[in-house]
Amino acid sequence: MEYKENDSVRLSADGMSAEIIDQTLLPNEKKILTLCEPDEMFEAIRSLRVRGAPAIGIFAGYCLYVLAARYGDKDDLPEKLREWSGYLGSARPTAVNLTWALERVYRAAISQVRGERIAAMRREAENIHIQDIEVCRRIAQYGLTLVRDGDGILTHCNAGALATSRYGTGLGALLLGKELGYEFHAYVDETRPLLQGARLTSYELYEAGVDCTLICDNMASQVMKEGRIQACFAGCDRAALNGDCANKIGTSAVAVLAKYYGIPFYIFCPISTIDAACASGENIVIEERSGDEIKKMFFEKPIAPEGVKCYDPAFDVTDHTLITAIVTEKGIIRPPFGNKLAELVGG
Amino acid sequence: MEYKENDSVRLSADGMSAEIIDQTLLPNEKKILTLCEPDEMFEAIRSLRVRGAPAIGIFAGYCLYVLAARYGDKDDLPEKLREWSGYLGSARPTAVNLTWALERVYRAAISQVRGERIAAMRREAENIHIQDIEVCRRIAQYGLTLVRDGDGILTHCNAGALATSRYGTGLGALLLGKELGYEFHAYVDETRPLLQGARLTSYELYEAGVDCTLICDNMASQVMKEGRIQACFAGCDRAALNGDCANKIGTSAVAVLAKYYGIPFYIFCPISTIDAACASGENIVIEERSGDEIKKMFFEKPIAPEGVKCYDPAFDVTDHTLITAIVTEKGIIRPPFGNKLAELVGG
Repeated sequence: MEYKENDSVRLSADGMSAEIIDQTLLPNEKKILTLCEPDEMFEAIRSLRVRGAPAIGIFAGYCLYVLAARYGDKDDLPEKLREWSGYLGSARPTAVNLTWALERVYRAAISQVRGERIAAMRREAENIHIQDIEVCRRIAQYGLTLVRDGDGILTHCNAGALATSRYGTGLGALLLGKELGYEFHAYVDETRPLLQGARLTSYELYEAGVDCTLICDNMASQVMKEGRIQACFAGCDRAALNGDCANKIGTSAVAVLAKYYGIPFYIFCPISTIDAACASGENIVIEERSGDEIKKMFFEKPIAPEGVKCYDPAFDVTDHTLITAIVTEKGIIRPPFGNKLAELVGG
Repeated sequence: MEYKENDSVRLSADGMSAEIIDQTLLPNEKKILTLCEPDEMFEAIRSLRVRGAPAIGIFAGYCLYVLAARYGDKDDLPEKLREWSGYLGSARPTAVNLTWALERVYRAAISQVRGERIAAMRREAENIHIQDIEVCRRIAQYGLTLVRDGDGILTHCNAGALATSRYGTGLGALLLGKELGYEFHAYVDETRPLLQGARLTSYELYEAGVDCTLICDNMASQVMKEGRIQACFAGCDRAALNGDCANKIGTSAVAVLAKYYGIPFYIFCPISTIDAACASGENIVIEERSGDEIKKMFFEKPIAPEGVKCYDPAFDVTDHTLITAIVTEKGIIRPPFGNKLAELVGG
């Protein structure tokens, strides 16, 4: 497996450690953490130093391999693997990719005879990574067919390589496009309250050399009106079968504005993100978070009086009627969505 | 003249000083500054401790009176008044209300004989204040007719009492409504990048006892979708004769969202804000400010890499087709706007 400089997760050159970009320090410091002990791996997941479900899965796979490689292919390796898996898997119990990746690498080990197990684990961990890159690359390639060289593209939140593997989903066309010589102009919503657009997306695009301009979320209307935007790209946290898509708060506002100004609005969505059990967006519960994220986080001083209430929904649902197309690794799904999403997930 | 606790500008009880709420310290500290020397009055205007064109005018009127009262009604008072006016008027040369108010109070003095001049100045300074309160009160009263008790009202930026006199324009209906026993539910856009909504509007509404919930700008779509909003209220920095209205960046996004969700969108606009020389919003130049406001101001650390560009338009123009009505002190103007605004300004 050949790594690139901005891969957020990787194996060290000697294969004996896992390395991550510490996302909690971005964009002010790009620090690579080299991890080889269970405790520090656990802490990196728990503290969101590595974040984004696919990135967490990739990291966990490498971690289990690294621990095995350091321990050696001893008789009791399977018992140790179960122990480490249980421990790492408890760092963020709700992250599906975490336990799924640990299980994959564990099974790769126990399917082999002693002496072959560690090599098999490394192959499997790398396969998880390679497969995620492939999903992202396909999504990016489909995305590229939706825009033209020189287009202005508005992004919301962060659906980039940091959260996944190389390319990302919503940023995939921009990052792959750069590799292929396209010159897009990205307008990056800062994405309050947690500023993922400012802290992570503008960082990723800038590092990749993509022309990128940071704006406040409330400036999207103005940049659209000025003709700077030819397409809007957003990721997806959960897609319902009717095409309603939950994503970071503010995504639906971008979609409404895009419709008003006649600009296409695209959702980038790995098939794993389509929820076969969810018929429409009405069934998606919106997580409400602490208002301290709005009033205090990142600021020198609170921005509003202590007694003022906040409402802090973490996501919103973009109605399918506002979505020009949903881009998956198996192709571009256009309205009417009908049963198309259900068919993709085998429904 | 009887003052209220939250008047942002006033005379001291003994009439020998001007008092202001230092707006640069809000919302973390409510500090009343007591000013009686020309230098400190100048600095308060220059440093935006008092801000908002009407509030600056009211303050300047009181300042000139205070300086005269302290100096005494001597022979050379008119010369001293001219000197102080020139000095204070240069603190913010582009603020029309500043020189206009100084001129009014100066003329009130020189129209009287010695011995009567200082009392006349105080009356005139108080009249400026009283008249602004009256304009705001009328706008607030008209605004109240547009909503029902218990309504949820979304606000953008700060068009409240701090920027004007009592009540404000865009917040007038909420503040006057509170006095009259209405119970509105305000949803306050924080209004990036300068956070006037969070820092000033939520402060004012909270202090007045109006039920108020702070949200990030990108949450407006979600709160509208959830049925929490029955009307949107915004101020105005400049209205064109066709009804296009320039206001704080993000206002046009609120208007587009309101239209999509079928919610009325109102602009509150003193007649002095209608630009008789401006036929349509296309003629309004949008001020572009420093991206440091987006990336650095208020934050502990920069939120994006140093090299990332920002685009920071301070205002946007809301198309008249998105505006349900424009509320002035002479009544509510509804579409089609036709010549109605021109007639109001005597065009």
